[in-house]
Amino acid sequence: MEITAIPRSVRASFKQLSDLFLLAEGGYLPVRGFQGSREVRHVAETMHLTSGEPWSIPIILPISAEEASALRGAEEVLVRDPDDRPAGRIHIEEIFPLDKSHYARHVFRTEDSEHPGVAWLASAGEYSVAGPVKLEPGWRLELRGGLPYAPSEVRSRIAQRGWKKVVGFQTRNPIHRAHEFVTKVALETADGLVIHPLLGETKSDDTPVEVRLACYRALLDNYYSPGHTMIAGFPAWMRYAGPREAIFHAQVRRNYGITHLIVGRDHAGVGKFYGPFDAQRIFSQFAAGELGIEPIFFDTVHYCRKCAAMTSPKTCPHGAEHHVSLSGTAVRKLLSEGQTLPPEFSRPEVARILLESGAHA
Amino acid sequence: MEITAIPRSVRASFKQLSDLFLLAEGGYLPVRGFQGSREVRHVAETMHLTSGEPWSIPIILPISAEEASALRGAEEVLVRDPDDRPAGRIHIEEIFPLDKSHYARHVFRTEDSEHPGVAWLASAGEYSVAGPVKLEPGWRLELRGGLPYAPSEVRSRIAQRGWKKVVGFQTRNPIHRAHEFVTKVALETADGLVIHPLLGETKSDDTPVEVRLACYRALLDNYYSPGHTMIAGFPAWMRYAGPREAIFHAQVRRNYGITHLIVGRDHAGVGKFYGPFDAQRIFSQFAAGELGIEPIFFDTVHYCRKCAAMTSPKTCPHGAEHHVSLSGTAVRKLLSEGQTLPPEFSRPEVARILLESGAHA
Repeated sequence: MEITAIPRSVRASFKQLSDLFLLAEGGYLPVRGFQGSREVRHVAETMHLTSGEPWSIPIILPISAEEASALRGAEEVLVRDPDDRPAGRIHIEEIFPLDKSHYARHVFRTEDSEHPGVAWLASAGEYSVAGPVKLEPGWRLELRGGLPYAPSEVRSRIAQRGWKKVVGFQTRNPIHRAHEFVTKVALETADGLVIHPLLGETKSDDTPVEVRLACYRALLDNYYSPGHTMIAGFPAWMRYAGPREAIFHAQVRRNYGITHLIVGRDHAGVGKFYGPFDAQRIFSQFAAGELGIEPIFFDTVHYCRKCAAMTSPKTCPHGAEHHVSLSGTAVRKLLSEGQTLPPEFSRPEVARILLESGAHA
Repeated sequence: MEITAIPRSVRASFKQLSDLFLLAEGGYLPVRGFQGSREVRHVAETMHLTSGEPWSIPIILPISAEEASALRGAEEVLVRDPDDRPAGRIHIEEIFPLDKSHYARHVFRTEDSEHPGVAWLASAGEYSVAGPVKLEPGWRLELRGGLPYAPSEVRSRIAQRGWKKVVGFQTRNPIHRAHEFVTKVALETADGLVIHPLLGETKSDDTPVEVRLACYRALLDNYYSPGHTMIAGFPAWMRYAGPREAIFHAQVRRNYGITHLIVGRDHAGVGKFYGPFDAQRIFSQFAAGELGIEPIFFDTVHYCRKCAAMTSPKTCPHGAEHHVSLSGTAVRKLLSEGQTLPPEFSRPEVARILLESGAHA
């Protein structure tokens, strides 16, 4: 990040533009702006705002020491996108040095630089600028795929369909049969399902967005009931904060009109930083109704040849020798060898796209 | 029903012994005795007790005019079972003539004698005896199958397992794959499942209890996870009151420690007396939390060859030509011709028992 020619402006990364967009569009309500030092510390320590409402991940706009100096005395800062277009404005309430160690310890539960969230924070500016935001007229976050992604757009589409109980599914991966199963299990007792892929930044070794979008389209066209399913984009970026990010994913989805969020095994986790069910257990730290959205928890899911169905340890009595389940590593190995994925693991239409994309090769 | 040799006693049918047992064992709480004329009328008209608590089916003990005369002036009546053993006592609060037309119109929504509930009521005594009940020491309702069936027994088994969210499944039929599917869908997001077959009296053309019990056992032994599933008996008898009986089934299950009851298509219905989703819609007539148990509603379920899975109109986009579903008539025809049921419809272990039982032949 560097200071642009015009003073009193900062150039933001795609990550921070995601946050700017979601703040301005009501995606982060009750949060309406980048948070100040007291709020950041309080959220990190308590998972609540100083006003008492729940909130699990501090929303910051890191800037360099040089940018911080250049902004001294300013009331407002213009945020520019990577193409130098004016994206939005922040009414400056505070510019403060970030306590990165405090943030990482609380939010990521680690300061290990192998953690992609910790690595991002380490590489980010040392200061943050806080205050309420608005978008510049005409500017809009650009997301691939042509899906609706503003909270109000998605809310109004849900309202048009008259859905009351609405399940949301967060994903940053292709949807294999295990994921399809959990979405359909949840949908069986709901009115509608929003497949809500995260389209903001992810790790470079995650499946590219274009490939994922093609997979989602193939799956929806062939295996979901259009009257009860929609797909929308989720413009947030991945923090890989595991449990904290599961709470964040739930609260932001509430602002999209979703009433129930699926939380599976190791939701928003990475490597071995979180236990497989930490992101489910954390919900018990909030009072009933406090988050304004209900989580739906799932155990590990696999195909069982004896059951001839997708199952979990809750519903299947058969041993692992009857189960079809592949690790991420096994999937990458099969695809890199030019082999297709088994139909019990992935729909043929999806497996073909992954094989032909060479994304895992 | 006839007057026994010993005065001040009545001999009860198996239906009324079911009610006696459930009343005495807390299965019908908040109801503790056979209901009087004012309560019966109020329940029929409002689906609530005069105390304000919800209750949908009046609990009566029909007796003949002769029995009613013989009980005049008595404070207590001994209830004998069909083997003439003393089963329990009623502290008599009222003996009153039944308004069968009023009861049938409200509870069964019909006075058509083709309705098995209406037919039962027509054949029952013209009076009813009301009052709180207790069982005679040593007497217990006899149910086939050796399953636990007292509310306290089932509650304590649930508590021992530490289950919090407990799904109940009411059934009076063999469990085919569609039923298995809805139980497992519900279990995926719960702690435990109670398969809770009704073992009181059913219509003579329903599958016999012994055959059903063998089917349940085969299914549980082969397709359910023992750590998350139990089977218990439900000693009530079928009224075939559709929507009213769905509410009744839910409230009685609450007394068994069940927190969520599956309510599928035409729950407790018969013939064409109720719309397929009437028994789901009726729950909206009660305030949130009023019943103390949550219903879980399911749409019609079928196997889809394109999805290679059990699905419903909510989760499957494919046409009926891809679906495997059999009417009750089609099932009876296949079995009576000595043919087995397709594996997409029924597990082979269950299909074999039904075929060999000759129950449908």
